[in-house]
Amino acid sequence: MIDHLLGEALRWWYAGEAVALATVTATTGSAPRPPGAGMLLAPDGTVTGSVSAGCVEASVHALCQEVLATGEARLARFGDTGDEVFEPRLTCGGTVEVYVERVDRASFADLARVGSAVAAGTPIAVVTGVDGPVGWRGRHLLVGADGVIGSDAGRDAPGSGANPGATAGATADTATDTAADSPAVAAARRMLADGRTGLVRPRPGALLLVRTFPPPPRMIICGTADFAAALARQGRFLGYRVTVCDARAVFTTAARFPDADDVVVDWPHRYLAAEAEAGRIDGRTVLCVLTHDAKFDVPLLRVAVDLPLAYIGAMGSRRSTADRSARLRAAGVSETALTRICAPTGLDIGARTPEETAVSIAAEIVAARAGRPGGRLTMAAGPIHDAPAVVDGADRPVSPPPHLPPPPPPPPPPPPPPTGRIRLERPPAARDAVRSSAAGEP
Amino acid sequence: MIDHLLGEALRWWYAGEAVALATVTATTGSAPRPPGAGMLLAPDGTVTGSVSAGCVEASVHALCQEVLATGEARLARFGDTGDEVFEPRLTCGGTVEVYVERVDRASFADLARVGSAVAAGTPIAVVTGVDGPVGWRGRHLLVGADGVIGSDAGRDAPGSGANPGATAGATADTATDTAADSPAVAAARRMLADGRTGLVRPRPGALLLVRTFPPPPRMIICGTADFAAALARQGRFLGYRVTVCDARAVFTTAARFPDADDVVVDWPHRYLAAEAEAGRIDGRTVLCVLTHDAKFDVPLLRVAVDLPLAYIGAMGSRRSTADRSARLRAAGVSETALTRICAPTGLDIGARTPEETAVSIAAEIVAARAGRPGGRLTMAAGPIHDAPAVVDGADRPVSPPPHLPPPPPPPPPPPPPPTGRIRLERPPAARDAVRSSAAGEP
Repeated sequence: MIDHLLGEALRWWYAGEAVALATVTATTGSAPRPPGAGMLLAPDGTVTGSVSAGCVEASVHALCQEVLATGEARLARFGDTGDEVFEPRLTCGGTVEVYVERVDRASFADLARVGSAVAAGTPIAVVTGVDGPVGWRGRHLLVGADGVIGSDAGRDAPGSGANPGATAGATADTATDTAADSPAVAAARRMLADGRTGLVRPRPGALLLVRTFPPPPRMIICGTADFAAALARQGRFLGYRVTVCDARAVFTTAARFPDADDVVVDWPHRYLAAEAEAGRIDGRTVLCVLTHDAKFDVPLLRVAVDLPLAYIGAMGSRRSTADRSARLRAAGVSETALTRICAPTGLDIGARTPEETAVSIAAEIVAARAGRPGGRLTMAAGPIHDAPAVVDGADRPVSPPPHLPPPPPPPPPPPPPPTGRIRLERPPAARDAVRSSAAGEP
Repeated sequence: MIDHLLGEALRWWYAGEAVALATVTATTGSAPRPPGAGMLLAPDGTVTGSVSAGCVEASVHALCQEVLATGEARLARFGDTGDEVFEPRLTCGGTVEVYVERVDRASFADLARVGSAVAAGTPIAVVTGVDGPVGWRGRHLLVGADGVIGSDAGRDAPGSGANPGATAGATADTATDTAADSPAVAAARRMLADGRTGLVRPRPGALLLVRTFPPPPRMIICGTADFAAALARQGRFLGYRVTVCDARAVFTTAARFPDADDVVVDWPHRYLAAEAEAGRIDGRTVLCVLTHDAKFDVPLLRVAVDLPLAYIGAMGSRRSTADRSARLRAAGVSETALTRICAPTGLDIGARTPEETAVSIAAEIVAARAGRPGGRLTMAAGPIHDAPAVVDGADRPVSPPPHLPPPPPPPPPPPPPPTGRIRLERPPAARDAVRSSAAGEP
């Protein structure tokens, strides 16, 4: 359940209608969408979002239709298993596991609270019982940074009694134990802190889906030329909360920066220092210095290199970069600190317009986060993105945390095959939507 | 005068008010904005656009204020001339030449026609008399693909009589000669065909600014997953007219693609072939194949490799790329034709989300157009973008044409110093807007 899906789900929820929501819970290999990606089928037939790059969309759509009709949640796996049990194959060679549930006021009474928390920028995790004791399957627990903030685990819901193997004892120590240090809640809090979504198994016999909605990371842009406006748009596009800061009031206006969340008239170095002092800078924050003028750049970068920023970029030609580096050295910035500054900022794509330059910088920010070199994939070899690990316990990550620096190099171990009580169901045959709805193959 | 500037200029023009419009006419070295970039000062003091990355904005703003007050157009140069005549220096080491004019109903009666042409996607060039005979300075000529479509050269306007050196003879063969093959009109038509903006000198004693508004290039996206929606947004951001095409009607809806200009339900290969047949594919068109399914990809790419497309990208893992190449070879596509397909599409930035993937693909499209390798600028050497040539005649390009493949390698000769009757005026001293408007340096 990602942001635009949440918005669409809420729209129908408020209208008293039900939607089917498919959420990627785990992937292996080169699956294109990570855990947390989702597809929503509305009662009017509209589809929002996707769970793959296209190859399993039709099958998941059919599964959504079924779940919307029956109310019975499903966990299904798609991929290249080699035994032809699970179809269709993914052309990319990975596997995708998808949880599909019906969401409405009856099955998820607290959805509006999730929407309020996300809108307010308050971190929140939604824990859903995928498998486990009676009364827990299909239930939701809302977890904040400090512990449980809501639960519908005491209410009836479709499908909740469909697990004859469950015992009362299992209920007590997994699902309904909402103490802040219970295994399920502790796992959700850890995942929330890391911004991860995925499955956890707090104890044998219980399987939970934890979906987290961390607050967006920050992008601070200093400078007010069209380059700054274009980059603000890219920052918003990539999910950043964007601040534009410049000391020149005539150019630093909300009208010039419709994509910025905040527009601040101040000397950038003073603003950045104050934000750091206030605890509003963290390891996900990126800083883009587009002021292009030593009297702003130099004091700002002096402050920046001592902060735990995810990315520091500074615009300028080769010549102005060399000049700025000399001024920073003269101001006491060490060679090691200088290497933290990406200058000239951006990838080498021959960008000229503000829009092209913004794409170049956005691409470098993504590349820096992933530890990638940024050349053309056609010319490179190896995987396109790192395969996420799949976990069978609460302590191991399900996917790399978004917006965090990449973990240290050791590759994840090959995922163990799912065991225990996960029931992977065979998805319904993919409907050939083309044949039924398009003009027919020529 | 670029698109958002034109919109802002029109808004005030219709209201009967005057704006000052600064347009970059020529650059040398590593100047950040190419000819055609502009800044607009409205009567309420708001500023739209920019002519540099920040270093000369304050000076140009002051010049705009002066021109708005006096109505007297100005041509000024900013840069690192070494003789301290022209200030401020550009930190990037280049020079920027800017033409500043007052635009209102009296000075530019035909501005609404320019707006209509741009809105309709009809190519149009605005030719403005910068220097030359009496009655021509400050006048506008509208030129379409086939010749002159409008002129205000017969009317009075502020500043038109300010050139005592002009002769009646010079008038006849430069400005007021609006035959389709006159030197001025022919130059404008050539620049319009190439999508270039800049100064031309059709004959000694006359200097014209030609601003062109070519129709946007096309981006055709095949596929309907969230990747396609995100890429449509990037395409629009970069100035493309975006078409999304897929055969699966349930996913191919305008609601899913708010940034697409056209959403087409059809088999992509059939659609592409029909568009080519209809003459709606050209050397600026980019094709992004995100269908991720051999039954769509293979017939589509077979059609694509025989078209004069600027870029062909196809999404997929290494494995599905190898599989697709094998199928294309089996379908008779040559090795040479296969090299035209960028697959996997995008730059190597570790993109995972649809948004990150869209940035990766957009960056490769820009890089391919500029003939750049990608990779981080920090790790590379050499100029960030190719310096545009400056011309002193109608036949030489002022800047590389936007959205066209790069010209063959030979570097442009060093620009000759401006000569003849270009009068480069010393710009007014830059106002230190910071000191006057911000909170003061700490």
